[in-house]
Amino acid sequence: MSETLNRSVTFADVEAAAERLAGHAVVTPLIESPALNARIGARVLIKPETLQRVGAFKFRGAYNRLVQLSPDERKRGVVAYSSGNHAQGVALAAKLLGTPARIVMPADAPAIKMAATKAYGAQIELFDRLTESREQIAAAISAETGAVTVPSFDDPHIIAGQGTVGLEMVRQAQALGAEFDQLLSPVGGGGLLGGITLAVRALSPRTTLWGVEPTDFEDLRLSLEAGRRTAIKPFRRSLCDALESAVTGELTFPILQANLAGALAITDPEVAEAMRYAFETLKLVVEPGGAVGLAALLTGKLKVQPGQTVGLVLSGGNVDPELFAQVIKGEV
Amino acid sequence: MSETLNRSVTFADVEAAAERLAGHAVVTPLIESPALNARIGARVLIKPETLQRVGAFKFRGAYNRLVQLSPDERKRGVVAYSSGNHAQGVALAAKLLGTPARIVMPADAPAIKMAATKAYGAQIELFDRLTESREQIAAAISAETGAVTVPSFDDPHIIAGQGTVGLEMVRQAQALGAEFDQLLSPVGGGGLLGGITLAVRALSPRTTLWGVEPTDFEDLRLSLEAGRRTAIKPFRRSLCDALESAVTGELTFPILQANLAGALAITDPEVAEAMRYAFETLKLVVEPGGAVGLAALLTGKLKVQPGQTVGLVLSGGNVDPELFAQVIKGEV
Repeated sequence: MSETLNRSVTFADVEAAAERLAGHAVVTPLIESPALNARIGARVLIKPETLQRVGAFKFRGAYNRLVQLSPDERKRGVVAYSSGNHAQGVALAAKLLGTPARIVMPADAPAIKMAATKAYGAQIELFDRLTESREQIAAAISAETGAVTVPSFDDPHIIAGQGTVGLEMVRQAQALGAEFDQLLSPVGGGGLLGGITLAVRALSPRTTLWGVEPTDFEDLRLSLEAGRRTAIKPFRRSLCDALESAVTGELTFPILQANLAGALAITDPEVAEAMRYAFETLKLVVEPGGAVGLAALLTGKLKVQPGQTVGLVLSGGNVDPELFAQVIKGEV
Repeated sequence: MSETLNRSVTFADVEAAAERLAGHAVVTPLIESPALNARIGARVLIKPETLQRVGAFKFRGAYNRLVQLSPDERKRGVVAYSSGNHAQGVALAAKLLGTPARIVMPADAPAIKMAATKAYGAQIELFDRLTESREQIAAAISAETGAVTVPSFDDPHIIAGQGTVGLEMVRQAQALGAEFDQLLSPVGGGGLLGGITLAVRALSPRTTLWGVEPTDFEDLRLSLEAGRRTAIKPFRRSLCDALESAVTGELTFPILQANLAGALAITDPEVAEAMRYAFETLKLVVEPGGAVGLAALLTGKLKVQPGQTVGLVLSGGNVDPELFAQVIKGEV
């Protein structure tokens, strides 16, 4: 643990991750909707990580971490805890690399995420969100089997892997002759946004960066305001199962603190409205946590000057059909 | 009418259409899903025309036709009949070009298609599918107002515009170092597939081309077998509202006859299964008629050799939320 946290993560790590991911992760396209552009009055370049392997960006970081395991570590396997997308990313990366994976998941995780994690061959250990500690369960597995713990965000290799999203976005925008005035991404623990920040700061210093989190899970906003990592005590569930983190990471917070313009907060009804917009107009399946950036645009919570170019990350699309059906019918 | 039909349509027309569409239509990406590749045992390169303006390829042909109206014709406006996607394509192209559009639509067209057509500013004339003739209604409007009739497929400019889908696909595949062994596309009247065929035959002569239509709407298969255009008498509705054509076009049939390997037929349950796969695995919203090619792959109705490269067109994503909810919940 301390070994991991003792070293910082840099843009060079993101570049190295991109080389490791080449041919393994999908280079998702950067797409554009004239209808969305017209509605926002700006050019919105969308990075649909919904089209990534496992339906979310999480494969990038997981593969970048697991491909660097030593031969001995590969034999012992990995253990991770996650409500779903990191679980799938680790499970698929482990399958591709031939290493056993054990995943600690809450018993109420979305069924689609649990089924996919199982389908990739991982062994799932369920826990009760209210009475058990996933950290303790994972630590016990690691102690018993020697498995390497793969954190969901606070790890330099994970952050560097997720950062390839930002690297691709800047280069794809350049290929269109564009540069981002602003860029916004969902944020939970900060692995994705931290990695993106490293890439964007290096390649496009003038871009303003924003994190978007669910209301009542505004640990990033509180931390930025306090000037130090500040945990929240969740008192409700969010529609955004992927963004219910209680505190930004030790490694990710300094990166975010030094580079973000701020954090925006989105309510559940605003998320549902953004998912409907993605269904009706963009024709994309986006999960609640993946749609908060789009919601920040549609609600006007992100202030956009006419004619600006805005980068938008749709981070995942793993949503149960029952919930998606309710959302598109306007019942949520 | 005869003026239109008297001249053939060629690859040069597709190239000219691409120039007219540049900056107006979306260059949709060519995307790839490792999960789909693994399932099919081949490399499937997907063209999601769901991401096109109006959510379907139809904008391409409509814009290519309308941008060539004379100043006098633009003043008089256009009239078209369509169950929905051509309607939206004509309505949006007319709005962009500042010409009035009147669209004849069946009263039972999907609500999402009707609402979007209205939102683009077109005037909608509803008709009863069982008792009225849309051709007569459109002809009466044209006679009264001088509006130019915009056919949904049997027109060289429409075919050439839709053909830009194929032109982009071949070039995008080349950029990946790939060439299509086979390519399959939904087919109704044959505007899309005819246009694609012109482009693919010119640029990639060895590619085998297939049309995919709903069972009981197999006018293309019957026509290919008979060696001449053969109409069907529909005795039921198809889930694929966009593919209920009774007969392949006068202009499109000779192109298809000379170049296709054949036509495949897909049942409603197979279409629904493909839509679920697109939701769960590809994270794309695809309407029934847009998913028949995917269904041909998933069912094994298209024979694919291991390691082949297959081009797949997802032609549209305009589906009512109620139907989509039923499909993803497995109720259809």
